[in-house]
Amino acid sequence: MLMTAKEYIESLRQLKLNLYLLGEKVDNWVDHPIIRPSINAIAMTYKLAHEPESEALATTESALIKNRVNRFNSLFKSRDDLVRKVKLQRRLGQRTACCFQRCVGMDAINSIFSTTYEIDQKHGTAYHQRFKEWLKTLQENDLCISGAMTDVKGNRGVAPSEQADPDMFVHVVDRRDDGIVIRGAKAHQTGAANSHQMLIMPTLRMREGDEEYAVCCALPTDADGVTLIYGRQSCDTRKLEEGDIDVGNYNFGGQEVLIVLDDVFVPWERVFMCGEIDFTIMLVERFAAYHRQSYGGCKAGIGDVLIGATASIADYNGVRRAAHIRDKLGEMIHLAETIHACGLACSYEGWETAAGNYQANTLLANVCKLNVTRFPYELCRLAEDIAGGLLVTTPSEKDFRHPVIGKYIDKYLKGVPEVPTEARYRILTLIHAMSFGLVAPSYRTESMHGAGSPQAQKIMIERETDMGLKQKLARSIAGIDERENIID
Amino acid sequence: MLMTAKEYIESLRQLKLNLYLLGEKVDNWVDHPIIRPSINAIAMTYKLAHEPESEALATTESALIKNRVNRFNSLFKSRDDLVRKVKLQRRLGQRTACCFQRCVGMDAINSIFSTTYEIDQKHGTAYHQRFKEWLKTLQENDLCISGAMTDVKGNRGVAPSEQADPDMFVHVVDRRDDGIVIRGAKAHQTGAANSHQMLIMPTLRMREGDEEYAVCCALPTDADGVTLIYGRQSCDTRKLEEGDIDVGNYNFGGQEVLIVLDDVFVPWERVFMCGEIDFTIMLVERFAAYHRQSYGGCKAGIGDVLIGATASIADYNGVRRAAHIRDKLGEMIHLAETIHACGLACSYEGWETAAGNYQANTLLANVCKLNVTRFPYELCRLAEDIAGGLLVTTPSEKDFRHPVIGKYIDKYLKGVPEVPTEARYRILTLIHAMSFGLVAPSYRTESMHGAGSPQAQKIMIERETDMGLKQKLARSIAGIDERENIID
Amino acid sequence: MLMTAKEYIESLRQLKLNLYLLGEKVDNWVDHPIIRPSINAIAMTYKLAHEPESEALATTESALIKNRVNRFNSLFKSRDDLVRKVKLQRRLGQRTACCFQRCVGMDAINSIFSTTYEIDQKHGTAYHQRFKEWLKTLQENDLCISGAMTDVKGNRGVAPSEQADPDMFVHVVDRRDDGIVIRGAKAHQTGAANSHQMLIMPTLRMREGDEEYAVCCALPTDADGVTLIYGRQSCDTRKLEEGDIDVGNYNFGGQEVLIVLDDVFVPWERVFMCGEIDFTIMLVERFAAYHRQSYGGCKAGIGDVLIGATASIADYNGVRRAAHIRDKLGEMIHLAETIHACGLACSYEGWETAAGNYQANTLLANVCKLNVTRFPYELCRLAEDIAGGLLVTTPSEKDFRHPVIGKYIDKYLKGVPEVPTEARYRILTLIHAMSFGLVAPSYRTESMHGAGSPQAQKIMIERETDMGLKQKLARSIAGIDERENIID
Amino acid sequence: MLMTAKEYIESLRQLKLNLYLLGEKVDNWVDHPIIRPSINAIAMTYKLAHEPESEALATTESALIKNRVNRFNSLFKSRDDLVRKVKLQRRLGQRTACCFQRCVGMDAINSIFSTTYEIDQKHGTAYHQRFKEWLKTLQENDLCISGAMTDVKGNRGVAPSEQADPDMFVHVVDRRDDGIVIRGAKAHQTGAANSHQMLIMPTLRMREGDEEYAVCCALPTDADGVTLIYGRQSCDTRKLEEGDIDVGNYNFGGQEVLIVLDDVFVPWERVFMCGEIDFTIMLVERFAAYHRQSYGGCKAGIGDVLIGATASIADYNGVRRAAHIRDKLGEMIHLAETIHACGLACSYEGWETAAGNYQANTLLANVCKLNVTRFPYELCRLAEDIAGGLLVTTPSEKDFRHPVIGKYIDKYLKGVPEVPTEARYRILTLIHAMSFGLVAPSYRTESMHGAGSPQAQKIMIERETDMGLKQKLARSIAGIDERENIID
Repeated sequence: MLMTAKEYIESLRQLKLNLYLLGEKVDNWVDHPIIRPSINAIAMTYKLAHEPESEALATTESALIKNRVNRFNSLFKSRDDLVRKVKLQRRLGQRTACCFQRCVGMDAINSIFSTTYEIDQKHGTAYHQRFKEWLKTLQENDLCISGAMTDVKGNRGVAPSEQADPDMFVHVVDRRDDGIVIRGAKAHQTGAANSHQMLIMPTLRMREGDEEYAVCCALPTDADGVTLIYGRQSCDTRKLEEGDIDVGNYNFGGQEVLIVLDDVFVPWERVFMCGEIDFTIMLVERFAAYHRQSYGGCKAGIGDVLIGATASIADYNGVRRAAHIRDKLGEMIHLAETIHACGLACSYEGWETAAGNYQANTLLANVCKLNVTRFPYELCRLAEDIAGGLLVTTPSEKDFRHPVIGKYIDKYLKGVPEVPTEARYRILTLIHAMSFGLVAPSYRTESMHGAGSPQAQKIMIERETDMGLKQKLARSIAGIDERENIID
Repeated sequence: MLMTAKEYIESLRQLKLNLYLLGEKVDNWVDHPIIRPSINAIAMTYKLAHEPESEALATTESALIKNRVNRFNSLFKSRDDLVRKVKLQRRLGQRTACCFQRCVGMDAINSIFSTTYEIDQKHGTAYHQRFKEWLKTLQENDLCISGAMTDVKGNRGVAPSEQADPDMFVHVVDRRDDGIVIRGAKAHQTGAANSHQMLIMPTLRMREGDEEYAVCCALPTDADGVTLIYGRQSCDTRKLEEGDIDVGNYNFGGQEVLIVLDDVFVPWERVFMCGEIDFTIMLVERFAAYHRQSYGGCKAGIGDVLIGATASIADYNGVRRAAHIRDKLGEMIHLAETIHACGLACSYEGWETAAGNYQANTLLANVCKLNVTRFPYELCRLAEDIAGGLLVTTPSEKDFRHPVIGKYIDKYLKGVPEVPTEARYRILTLIHAMSFGLVAPSYRTESMHGAGSPQAQKIMIERETDMGLKQKLARSIAGIDERENIID
Repeated sequence: MLMTAKEYIESLRQLKLNLYLLGEKVDNWVDHPIIRPSINAIAMTYKLAHEPESEALATTESALIKNRVNRFNSLFKSRDDLVRKVKLQRRLGQRTACCFQRCVGMDAINSIFSTTYEIDQKHGTAYHQRFKEWLKTLQENDLCISGAMTDVKGNRGVAPSEQADPDMFVHVVDRRDDGIVIRGAKAHQTGAANSHQMLIMPTLRMREGDEEYAVCCALPTDADGVTLIYGRQSCDTRKLEEGDIDVGNYNFGGQEVLIVLDDVFVPWERVFMCGEIDFTIMLVERFAAYHRQSYGGCKAGIGDVLIGATASIADYNGVRRAAHIRDKLGEMIHLAETIHACGLACSYEGWETAAGNYQANTLLANVCKLNVTRFPYELCRLAEDIAGGLLVTTPSEKDFRHPVIGKYIDKYLKGVPEVPTEARYRILTLIHAMSFGLVAPSYRTESMHGAGSPQAQKIMIERETDMGLKQKLARSIAGIDERENIID
Repeated sequence: MLMTAKEYIESLRQLKLNLYLLGEKVDNWVDHPIIRPSINAIAMTYKLAHEPESEALATTESALIKNRVNRFNSLFKSRDDLVRKVKLQRRLGQRTACCFQRCVGMDAINSIFSTTYEIDQKHGTAYHQRFKEWLKTLQENDLCISGAMTDVKGNRGVAPSEQADPDMFVHVVDRRDDGIVIRGAKAHQTGAANSHQMLIMPTLRMREGDEEYAVCCALPTDADGVTLIYGRQSCDTRKLEEGDIDVGNYNFGGQEVLIVLDDVFVPWERVFMCGEIDFTIMLVERFAAYHRQSYGGCKAGIGDVLIGATASIADYNGVRRAAHIRDKLGEMIHLAETIHACGLACSYEGWETAAGNYQANTLLANVCKLNVTRFPYELCRLAEDIAGGLLVTTPSEKDFRHPVIGKYIDKYLKGVPEVPTEARYRILTLIHAMSFGLVAPSYRTESMHGAGSPQAQKIMIERETDMGLKQKLARSIAGIDERENIID
């Protein structure tokens, strides 16, 4: 059963979230104007599953159940699946112009799937089968799932079990016959409040002594003991204002939540790792590779909207054909496509895990993400260059609608004669939203820190390359080792 | 008489501004929480004039009256004055962490001073003496003056007199015995609502047919026919909220206003150019050179605060000594100092005008500004890198103060044990304000477009260099021209 | 029949080239020390065809004849073939550390194959069959073929038929019953002197009046009327010196030749376009897309050697584990892999032509190449940073071997105790060769200008993107067009 | 007495250098075609002293003797002297298009002058007076002096006194009544073979145990025990060929020498430090600051020639007015001027030492140099972009002069009709020399490693900034510390 966007939104009303926003507990969070755009963004992942022209990207045959399932809940069964994932993400970025939040769950599903298989192989546990059962139900009900990896971490210089406060990483505080009890918090949780369930995962390599921190499990977002605290985003309260211009992207937005787990019970059938410290890094790295691949899709798609908006403001200002404008637009396209090319390449070069699903190529996924930590910033800078100073000096929509001064604004903020002032206004606020406002956390900071900060990618790139081979090649060419004989 | 900061603020209450903000006419604008921080920022320019350790930078002997005057109202009488200007601007950037808005007036004063002298020389007019008289009164009363150059421009492909709407550039609509009547609008007017008077200037080279657009004059900001419409800035309404954390920079902020001039009368004694199209480009370029120099001061100073904040968040996260963090902090310092070095260099290499005041070196001032259009963006990117994702996911101060969930935030958002969570919170919101929020228009977009967009600097750089000499040098070295004989 | 490297080299001796080098006609050019390394580089393409571990990359089933053929002489029958092409190129870059010169021919073959098919479709000509016949012979004899596109161009502001000297673009000067006579010159001809035949192609879009310039044909490199003038390369005469260190890359090198065609006769069976101006741009653009793809292979491979050499000098200097060295090495890897990722992506996203062979994705191939015009320069800069000043101050090998001063050099140029001075010497000269010396034209300038200069890629990127779609997306998000309804 | 260029060259003939080049001892080194251009470059520093229009830059009143002296032998008596130094260096860079080698001596003189003063103050030694006496003689005879700082260093992880081979840093091997005996080697010695004397200095901070390595003294370049081994440079043997085109810069060139000191005696009157380990770092850092300042002059000047050459090739190719060409030329100017602006700024912001001469501002001198490690590379890349592929594919001058093929080259390598092919040829080889050939070590590698590698500058920049102040500013703005009260 593939839910429609509308059904997804209605289904959320069943969740009794313990959710706080701007200092208040929010009961009807589904219709809250600050939250709703982030729900709409996820809803788009449901909508595309019913669109004929997107269906092949947005859905796939399940490996576990009979029906087609949403790709976000699927296992990647081939390199082609990896490629379609990235292309789907680009399309969703284009359609929402923001983070659509559902990738973390998809990437978590696939990394837990293959990791539990290998844990069971080594430790004789039964996590993999459990996980498959859980996943079947997820697929059958077309639920939305978020992935919760990043702990709050406290003092970065100290291991989880050695922190002054033992709760700085999520950990098991009680093991009972029927399940476990966990405590801690997960930060920067994209889409957590819009999901039916969440997958808890460890955030780094656990070592001896950290056993209670090696925990992976699923729980409903409204389980007892769960508190969600909604993060502020730049210009968030513009969504509370009248009108639809100043907010820039009226329909869609991202969401970041601090999840507090205050002694939450999880039954064993939803526990997928508990104490296996030797598999924490595998889970973390597989997830990271998937998620670094993901950015080769979504950020290219969001970039497309920014490029389109920038070309439009150049049109509206009457300067589109100027050589330096064309050059800068060309550069923006180039950077967005470089990101996407890296996303595609790491997908096409994927590999099959022992469990049978496919992983993106680790080296190239990291290369992809490292470019993502740089290029969106340059895209924003170029967009600001072309947009002009009005980007940050336009009066409010209320001024524009004002009976006395509205006419001044309409008269004086007009660009080329054939474009209404309001269109120019709207395109400027969209660019503003992307580089300063509500979309900027999605497009800039998430590009920087999502799936790990740039330094993490640098380290992986250094580690994943075959430097021994490269040095051997150099020694042979230099004649330090014997030179290659091409004739005999 | 040098006003104190307090006296300056009180003096503003005399102004009966016709000011609109967020769709409403604001009467007590001096105490309006969105506007007040921008007043405070200018007030700092008055405060420094009374600080013993800043006095030598902030004040100077007047060339026109007996007293020391605020440097912002002074003529640059030497290269040393140009240097002190830039150093003062850096200090003010450090103390306010935003645009302090008073530079446009200072730069306008100096460019009008020298240009009116040359107009009079050629045309036998009496603008220069008039301007000196006006300036004396300004100095004697220590008034704050804004400079209004940028017209709204309409269709950028068409000259002022050929626009569909003749009002897209400010122009004279009536010449009377006692003065002129002007109409039009000036966009992106920094500090306009915080000033006692404004100096209207043309925005580009006027050509035959544009005579009525070649107008320079002074008028009170509350003159009849003047309407000020306050521009929105990212996160502006956070200033209306309780608390002082989320806004990032609670005390200080910039200000951009759309000035509408609906048939405003200006008496002849405040008219400094009226129809002399042949001098418009001189005025524009001299102003531009001064203002491009200015950014070598203020943006370095704001950068200092961002660097300090970034080093602090690294401390609070416990990662300050990591090699890659040190490298990035070093890079941030390097970029900020390169900007300042260019600001200093163009000052030290200044030249004396025919009127006797000093201009910054045009080529180097443009080089300075072109770097400013690039480096603050990279500084923001590096700050975001070091700050981590929490930069855009922290809950609100209201959540932090909340009786139920506040304790969660305090517990879980703690970094190193010895630093209170609140300090970490505050430094994150400051960085956020600088890269996304209320300071970002000052630090990013103004760096891009203030004093002209990067393309304007590229063109000036190409024009100001002596390419003929460079080609001659190359031809001689290459032996196309005769090579230099070093012996005989 | 797949020739061995040795057989290829011997086969060259049959060619009676009219070849000039450093002011002299060279008869035994095969053994000339300046030329031989470039022959060796091509020979490597023959060697790999016989290596079990490279065979799948280096050879393929022919679409035309029964045997496996060298990939350089093959048609790309699938996306997979495009991918293997790029991976083969990377391997060859790794093995030769220079341009191996045979790609132009391969790319020319494939673009002429598909273009002749479409010419025939439209004009009822028989070029395609002719070309297939010619290609069969080529494959059967495993010949080496170069592609000759770039004309000398004269005044870039003027069309071929309007140049002061009509010979600035290769053109038909006589049409005879048995064939045509052509005149002109082709510049920067990579590998021309090492090939058995060359494919002449037009270099830009021809327009009415340029019919005689729309010519494509094959001819032997030693045909009557052909003169080859060997281009100088940085440090070329080091190959004439004793010893093998100073040259850096002793075995391998690139080659660039000026081909002069002084009334050369070409029989009709080797003429594949003659006057069809409407197809010149198709041929040029298809070739360009292939060749821009190619650089995503070879330049990544050459980069691998540079990275290996740089890591080695860091080892030898005892600084390899320093954080800033690791960071820079990581950056070098990142840049080389970004190039390769783009090369892979444009291959995987290839498309089938009407003639049935596959083209690389045009947009992504241009994106690939534009990155190539930038990143090798940064790789060289980083290599120089890590190598240290000794890179350009080492004495000569002769000094090193000198009975009196050799011992000083051995003593004083030693790095870490366990590495012989000579190894350090050798790795430094290799890096020198790549960034300054004999490899630098291959690795730097060819990256910039090969397959078209960066501006050509910018233009293609702008043209190939669907800006209309991007602007539509932006207008919908901004609410200028109707916003997307996600619910109904 | 100020020598003329000719007198300087003649004076060198008195020196009996023990000099090796390409494996041979060179007796008439003054006229050796590989060496002579580097002598000519220094000779230009003598020539300018006699040029009326350069005199004010090239000479100054001595603080020690009655006459005007060459600035290269002078003490910097004011900030203005520092500025003139940088402007002189730019002019010399413009006139020679290479490293003119005499700056190291000038910078060494000034750092030893102030450091010896402070050594004497603390240790009661008499080095300063000794040094002044030596300097007087230098000035009176207008000798050319080189500075020898960089030791060969061996294993970079180990202190001088702990190296496997104790000679990896120059050290005192014997103290006698009349002087000391030193041993070791100095690498990358710019201009060593063209100088009358050299100043030996320690290369890093010495610690306890390293006393014998803390040595500073002067000696004649032809002293007993001194061997000079001339370093290879890219394309060096082109200077041995007939013709003057291929070499690019026929008249001028740099020079790097390995100096071997095999038990060289230095009388006490030329010893300026001997064992004072506590002053080694002062000497090193003062020298470094001066020399990092220097690059803000010379590299801007060499850049001027490259820019001029690049504009010329654009003219000759007929593309000078293309928007992208103008943009790139503008960028080249911008980068060269940014370097120069930093050089000027650190000069103007200099400070007076206890000894009374002036030092460049340390922070800004390091900022200057760090930009120099980046921008010339980008200038070269842009020059290559504009020059086109012909840069590395032109045939040799011998081919151009060849009776048979010369006419082909003349015909086919012609650009716009009004410029002779030879001029185009010459300008291309000049650009080649600067980015690949004989000038490239001066313009690229020396920019990277001269006066210390980029990492050294990063560290100094981090150390020299007042991070405490910056953090205080941030804490105050953020409200962690008390906010500034602007009213009371």
